[in-house]
Amino acid sequence: MSVKILITGGTFDKEYDEISGKLYFNQTHLPEILNLGRCNLQASMETLMMIDSLEMTDGDRELILSACSRSEEDRLVITHGTDTMEVTARRLGEAGLKKTIVLTGAMIPYKFGSSDGLFNMGTALAFVQSLPHGVYVAMNGRCFTWDNVRKNRIKGTFEELDS
Amino acid sequence: MSVKILITGGTFDKEYDEISGKLYFNQTHLPEILNLGRCNLQASMETLMMIDSLEMTDGDRELILSACSRSEEDRLVITHGTDTMEVTARRLGEAGLKKTIVLTGAMIPYKFGSSDGLFNMGTALAFVQSLPHGVYVAMNGRCFTWDNVRKNRIKGTFEELDS
Amino acid sequence: MSVKILITGGTFDKEYDEISGKLYFNQTHLPEILNLGRCNLQASMETLMMIDSLEMTDGDRELILSACSRSEEDRLVITHGTDTMEVTARRLGEAGLKKTIVLTGAMIPYKFGSSDGLFNMGTALAFVQSLPHGVYVAMNGRCFTWDNVRKNRIKGTFEELDS
Amino acid sequence: MSVKILITGGTFDKEYDEISGKLYFNQTHLPEILNLGRCNLQASMETLMMIDSLEMTDGDRELILSACSRSEEDRLVITHGTDTMEVTARRLGEAGLKKTIVLTGAMIPYKFGSSDGLFNMGTALAFVQSLPHGVYVAMNGRCFTWDNVRKNRIKGTFEELDS
Repeated sequence: MSVKILITGGTFDKEYDEISGKLYFNQTHLPEILNLGRCNLQASMETLMMIDSLEMTDGDRELILSACSRSEEDRLVITHGTDTMEVTARRLGEAGLKKTIVLTGAMIPYKFGSSDGLFNMGTALAFVQSLPHGVYVAMNGRCFTWDNVRKNRIKGTFEELDS
Repeated sequence: MSVKILITGGTFDKEYDEISGKLYFNQTHLPEILNLGRCNLQASMETLMMIDSLEMTDGDRELILSACSRSEEDRLVITHGTDTMEVTARRLGEAGLKKTIVLTGAMIPYKFGSSDGLFNMGTALAFVQSLPHGVYVAMNGRCFTWDNVRKNRIKGTFEELDS
Repeated sequence: MSVKILITGGTFDKEYDEISGKLYFNQTHLPEILNLGRCNLQASMETLMMIDSLEMTDGDRELILSACSRSEEDRLVITHGTDTMEVTARRLGEAGLKKTIVLTGAMIPYKFGSSDGLFNMGTALAFVQSLPHGVYVAMNGRCFTWDNVRKNRIKGTFEELDS
Repeated sequence: MSVKILITGGTFDKEYDEISGKLYFNQTHLPEILNLGRCNLQASMETLMMIDSLEMTDGDRELILSACSRSEEDRLVITHGTDTMEVTARRLGEAGLKKTIVLTGAMIPYKFGSSDGLFNMGTALAFVQSLPHGVYVAMNGRCFTWDNVRKNRIKGTFEELDS
């Protein structure tokens, strides 16, 4: 089974710049993460953009949709900032592609101690292999469908719309 | 959805005793791992034993089977040493319980840097939520059925019997 | 031998707020650091302020000087942001207290992976025990006197004025 | 100021072999440690041996003494297992070289989380720059002279002979 990982940035891939004292994007840490997980899945990666999801535009979302659409693999994981993950999930969900697409991210940058990124990527890669076609968000050890998920900004966790 | 996690020890939970310079078992790190993953799954834990899987006896395996059998939850994750994970998976698989059971472990103790434990637990918790009844091994980002898995002791990774 | 540690904040003690996605100050990590170093020194700690050293005012520096001056211990370590460490060192040096005072800090927050904080605190605690009265900056494994040190903002390292 | 670091192994440099599940020696982590500490000291390294100090023979100690003796630098740090660090310190101390020699080690391997190695190396490098000729043990944030130090095997910490 072969999986495609599309990278868009998000907290997941943020780093600390010790000269400026600010957070920034450098290279993705995905290869390092898959290596740490001794992951043997056939997985190819493509970096679409490297941005904070608060800055993601409709145009960026069309680009993501287009990458999903043209991908040979029908199983895709997308790394994404958590702030607008539900917006992108909705855009992809409404497109109704015949693929299994799982969005995931992190609350803490992977490079910092105590990141949830390694765990989340584990769940996303497992869900993408086992779920039927559809668009999902994998966060907090759970899986949400694209039309029933939101980020609770107070708690910093994901939940169903009616919770 | 509610999941039960049965703990049996394995490399996953090994620690370094700085007085003796040896590896040993103390308490399980599962609660810490679920916390790090900001896991919101309804998950209960039960420590059945805390041993190296090379020392696991047939009696221990009956005890694990019995815990699976009497569990109210029909979705179970079992943490297990990698060396005989396939043996326990087979015992559980042959029992044919109407439950989804996923065994997982780690090549490097969770407490050490560079452990695959957090990633593996992420995959196990996702597979257990999404797969039909059966017994599985979740390692290396992949999922194996109980009757077609072995540990490649040279590479330290899991593979199908015919690979 | 007894040492006093004065805490003023700096990168050393910055943390990542996963709700806001910003860096902030919470509690100091000094007790955790001394614990990790299995440090058996008689050391007392006092948090004077918890700020970025770019925001440190002359008034703050008088407060630090006053804390050094009234301290019973004649060996003091001060944790400090690196950006204006040389300014505070100069203010303390010019005061000419009959004490050994060592300022140190970190380029990367202690809580993040790959921090230099633990190493730097090790050097500061050793220098403060072994050097004669005076004011010093301990960074990059080296020790600088207060009247001959500056931060090279391009390289992010400390050096002598004439280098 | 230029420092020589002699490497002999010890817990400091132990790693976990994920295939055998045993601790072993591979390459030294000293360069990585100095890098993490953003250390700018002029320091050269030499690996003399890579052994557990319980296995260190009188011959090994003569080899260490000889390396200290022939070293151009008169400031040396020696990484060493903690179990017989006091024995080697005594051998070097009795030789009465006109050099400053500091032995240090770790209770937890550097590669594992929660190692004291980075902190200890910080103290050793600072002590070796600031202390007069003599042989010292730098552990637990403190500095002991070669003729008044022992490891308390119950507590896992270093102390004076009469404590």
